[in-house]
Amino acid sequence: MKERQDLLNLPHKTIERLSQYRRALLICIDNGRTHIFSHEIAKIQHITPVQVRRDLMLIGYSGTLRKGYNIRELIDLIGEIIDSQEVTNVAIVGMGNLGGALIKYFNGKRHKLYIVAGFDTNPKKIGKTINGIECYGPEDMAKIVKEKNIKIGILTVPAVNAIESSKRLVDSGIKGIVNYAPKPIEVPDNVYLEEYDMVTTLEKVAFYVKMAEMEGE
Amino acid sequence: MKERQDLLNLPHKTIERLSQYRRALLICIDNGRTHIFSHEIAKIQHITPVQVRRDLMLIGYSGTLRKGYNIRELIDLIGEIIDSQEVTNVAIVGMGNLGGALIKYFNGKRHKLYIVAGFDTNPKKIGKTINGIECYGPEDMAKIVKEKNIKIGILTVPAVNAIESSKRLVDSGIKGIVNYAPKPIEVPDNVYLEEYDMVTTLEKVAFYVKMAEMEGE
Repeated sequence: MKERQDLLNLPHKTIERLSQYRRALLICIDNGRTHIFSHEIAKIQHITPVQVRRDLMLIGYSGTLRKGYNIRELIDLIGEIIDSQEVTNVAIVGMGNLGGALIKYFNGKRHKLYIVAGFDTNPKKIGKTINGIECYGPEDMAKIVKEKNIKIGILTVPAVNAIESSKRLVDSGIKGIVNYAPKPIEVPDNVYLEEYDMVTTLEKVAFYVKMAEMEGE
Repeated sequence: MKERQDLLNLPHKTIERLSQYRRALLICIDNGRTHIFSHEIAKIQHITPVQVRRDLMLIGYSGTLRKGYNIRELIDLIGEIIDSQEVTNVAIVGMGNLGGALIKYFNGKRHKLYIVAGFDTNPKKIGKTINGIECYGPEDMAKIVKEKNIKIGILTVPAVNAIESSKRLVDSGIKGIVNYAPKPIEVPDNVYLEEYDMVTTLEKVAFYVKMAEMEGE
């Protein structure tokens, strides 16, 4: 594995693509394949083979001209780079449909990321086990985050609760937040934030569909 | 409103930001505000005021030095640009938790995007109304897409069903797809595709949390 400083210098987009390459490679392993060429990875990911080769050079991996990359080796190397040595514990804040979807989606599939607690303000949910995950009230967040060594919080609350919930996560000592609430939040510099808004994505697709239809008229 | 060719030339990122600006502006309206400065929008969106002014110049809007932008006017202008004149009908493919979350999230909140049908392979769901949306079997997709004038499909199926479902959507005449299934899909050139993978996002956050912890050691 490369030195920490090298890893910190990896472009954000490379980190994202490494995660996506691994996902594609795991499917190839399931299909019984052992080797893969950069142009094949590129085709799956809708990018250029040059981009794939550049990303893999950045992590110090190269294939052979005749057989391509060894899939198993590459999966393991990507894991060494992007995964923690230990499991990273994650909490869901907002145990509604999206929270439930995330729990089903992650748990049992990834070994290094695990959702270990949920939080909700609804008294009917607090104290219950939902999709195998215990649900706590917001007032217990600091205690649970510490007890369960939770590093990342995923916000799936309504817009109106986003800011309060994010402040509570930060105060509880969380180090990273994924915000799916339809409202931007702010975090201190020592907390890593990713925000994604489903409405933005759907509006963008609708815009291009509208443009294509105008073209067809 | 600007000419269609001007709109087509808008950068993809500008389209995304216009959608995000509108979301922030709607919250400001709810808070009783009438005008806003570019630096205020910039702060909410974590970008520079220059970027905000550039985006709004691209759509031909400028504020006044003293009062800033008129929020209502700006919301309406963004709507003229990114919304269809009519409602855009949307279908969910995969009526699980994520599908349910999207239905609750969109319907009743946006006037121009409406989820009008769901599809699932589970016989227990077919023919039922789930969160107010009727659920159909995949074999009815072409018929329902035509009858209900559905333009966009949102894929929320498991990885193993992603490719088959996307082919069916394309064959049914859909013009845009948002893929939330954890597997990349391919579509013909006349279909607009956006893909988003929650695992990639969470792995990226976990990576930066890990880097920050190594720094702290």
